[in-house]
Amino acid sequence: MTTLAITGGRVLLPDATITRADVLIDQDAGEILQIGPDLDGDETLDGSDALVTPGFVNGHCHVAMSLLRGYADDKPLENWLREDIWPAEAQLTDEDIRAGAELGVLEMIKSGTTAFADMYFEVPEIAAAVEEAGVRARLGHGIVTVAKDEEEAREDAETSLEIAREYDGAADGRISAAFMPHSLTTVGEEYLAEYVPRAREAGIPIHYHANETSEEVTPIVEERGVRPLAYAAEKGMLDSQDFVAHGVHVDESEIQLLAEAGTGVIHCPASNMKLASGMAPVQRMLEAGVTVGLGTDGAASNNDLSMLDEARDAAMLGKLAAEDASAVPAESVVELVTRGSADALGLESGRLEQGAPADLAVIDLDAPHLTPRYDLVSHLAYAAAASDVRHTVCDGRVLMRDREVLTLEEASVLSRAREAAADLRTRLED
Amino acid sequence: MTTLAITGGRVLLPDATITRADVLIDQDAGEILQIGPDLDGDETLDGSDALVTPGFVNGHCHVAMSLLRGYADDKPLENWLREDIWPAEAQLTDEDIRAGAELGVLEMIKSGTTAFADMYFEVPEIAAAVEEAGVRARLGHGIVTVAKDEEEAREDAETSLEIAREYDGAADGRISAAFMPHSLTTVGEEYLAEYVPRAREAGIPIHYHANETSEEVTPIVEERGVRPLAYAAEKGMLDSQDFVAHGVHVDESEIQLLAEAGTGVIHCPASNMKLASGMAPVQRMLEAGVTVGLGTDGAASNNDLSMLDEARDAAMLGKLAAEDASAVPAESVVELVTRGSADALGLESGRLEQGAPADLAVIDLDAPHLTPRYDLVSHLAYAAAASDVRHTVCDGRVLMRDREVLTLEEASVLSRAREAAADLRTRLED
Repeated sequence: MTTLAITGGRVLLPDATITRADVLIDQDAGEILQIGPDLDGDETLDGSDALVTPGFVNGHCHVAMSLLRGYADDKPLENWLREDIWPAEAQLTDEDIRAGAELGVLEMIKSGTTAFADMYFEVPEIAAAVEEAGVRARLGHGIVTVAKDEEEAREDAETSLEIAREYDGAADGRISAAFMPHSLTTVGEEYLAEYVPRAREAGIPIHYHANETSEEVTPIVEERGVRPLAYAAEKGMLDSQDFVAHGVHVDESEIQLLAEAGTGVIHCPASNMKLASGMAPVQRMLEAGVTVGLGTDGAASNNDLSMLDEARDAAMLGKLAAEDASAVPAESVVELVTRGSADALGLESGRLEQGAPADLAVIDLDAPHLTPRYDLVSHLAYAAAASDVRHTVCDGRVLMRDREVLTLEEASVLSRAREAAADLRTRLED
Repeated sequence: MTTLAITGGRVLLPDATITRADVLIDQDAGEILQIGPDLDGDETLDGSDALVTPGFVNGHCHVAMSLLRGYADDKPLENWLREDIWPAEAQLTDEDIRAGAELGVLEMIKSGTTAFADMYFEVPEIAAAVEEAGVRARLGHGIVTVAKDEEEAREDAETSLEIAREYDGAADGRISAAFMPHSLTTVGEEYLAEYVPRAREAGIPIHYHANETSEEVTPIVEERGVRPLAYAAEKGMLDSQDFVAHGVHVDESEIQLLAEAGTGVIHCPASNMKLASGMAPVQRMLEAGVTVGLGTDGAASNNDLSMLDEARDAAMLGKLAAEDASAVPAESVVELVTRGSADALGLESGRLEQGAPADLAVIDLDAPHLTPRYDLVSHLAYAAAASDVRHTVCDGRVLMRDREVLTLEEASVLSRAREAAADLRTRLED
């Protein structure tokens, strides 16, 4: 057994208390062996003047879109998608998607994220980036059937199912998968009726965008006479394995459906603000017992992938939505960004305790913006930044040590992304 | 003449375009001499792979409250003030205020802020920190007369006037001052009637909190039958020199008053979200021609002092408030955080052009979260972080070079703040 010890720091425990302790990891099993005083390992990471937290879990992303960061901003969702994002995505090559995925995963490791859920296309490229980088991910191929003929639409749905079957358990179990219809309005009912049961039989969870904008809600209510999540339940898409992204415009009946079904909701506060989608009732969902996690969405609508930013945004927006400054407090968002997202995605990570996956981040506390130190949970929620992450560990392996990423070559990832972006822009301007 | 050249970078110009150029500074005059190719100075700062921007201007702060960062969170404004902040502030010694001010100014320099407006008490301690650190500030003593007897109330108002007279022009002109009644509901009408004309006669601008919460608006409307800013105008507090903080709950008539008077509004998006105060109509104010700047408010309601965070928050919240993703775009918030705040405060900084004050920040672009580079204005608004600031220059003097602050001893500022906070907590628990 090879062991890794993180020594001299403080540790954030699952009950949100913080204790001075070392963390000992079994690197072969990728698990936490022990949390306590004076632990020695074969390898050591310096945790002094730092807080050891669970690795952050990004519950909803389109990681390859990191290649489109800053490409188009300040537009409403529909125009942004139709005028900028979809035309750009139509030009993306496999190499572009690999370059964008590596860029995004590099940023995640540098900001303490050890796992993410991702919906995109050319999933093998994204899986290759995940495998190389050493993080964990639940991946899927996003299906859109509207504006496609039946053959194309079926091919898209088949691909999503095949990809999920092929990649579930890949990369020594670090990769899991989901069946991913894009949303309830962009995938035709006949395809949901056929493919959702097939995914369910294969034991594959389902992930989709739901109730992101009011424009996604109204047509379903008008056409079917039920709320979108009641429609999703009818179609068998509201299972305890499943998780939806956004959940901005959910009413009380839908909150109850989510809570009863055990379906996770990935709240994406930055994206919801940037696209003016609205304010999700996060405090109300938490009170109702819904499993809530956090996600960045793609970098094009954020524009970064830092889960510490997302935690701060979630606390801020949650208070505004509830019109109550005590809503969505620091302790809640720290839970959402770790165990909340992990639970929604069906991962065991997100908590530091014996036997849990050794997925963690070490946050340097020696900075003006983290001084003084009345309450480190408050600092994690409101003041810590991506650049404060000193080390990142996933599955027992050190992915970043002292800000140096060990599994990806940072300079070449950045230069490949810049070249791919320059080529893409040239193609789009032609 | 001693000169400083920033070479090899890109420069953000006042028209929001970005050009490859060097910047040459006359350090004796504290002014920009020239922006153009191939400039040499006696001293050089490396601007390669970086963006030179105007130094950020924090238009509303209580910098010494950095000592209370994370002391109490997740409470509504009234309870938070009465139960936590005011009792803690009552315990602050002069040394605490100096320690808190140095901590806050250190964080500002590290995040590219070169000027700020500050309302607090024991202003000489704050002025000393500003003088030592080399930044620019408009300082004032905050007056509260409610719950005070007449003698105390008059003393507070006199102090504010005296402090403004004494400190205007201090630190070789880097310090300016303002008369600072706390707000329209916490200062009695009789004191405004007496002291506002005296401040005006002395040529001193006025800065106060206005329309931050609906609880600040309702009593004035009920008691006086006019909106708060109409009341402020009656009292002579709406001049082109003056600037108000927050302006969350302003109606169309008040927006017109602000625009016509030329009174600046300092929007504090993070504080407004964290205290669930509401959403300021920033896009509407900009359309009406109001001078809008950005501020962090105190670190206890934010919880950091990074103006890059504030720019991102302003863009995000501005879209949500306007229910329009095209509202408060990247270009606007970059202007708000530089020239907008500077104009509101009556400072000449906030723009990079020949003859302007040499107040600037150099932002390192070599990072995953700033890759690729379609649009650097977008990156500045949405993705750049405090830790990306490589150098900070104010009044021609290098305050930070390669992340090392030269005017304050970082380690001792942090340890003094930690000790002061520990002592404060002990006193509060006794």
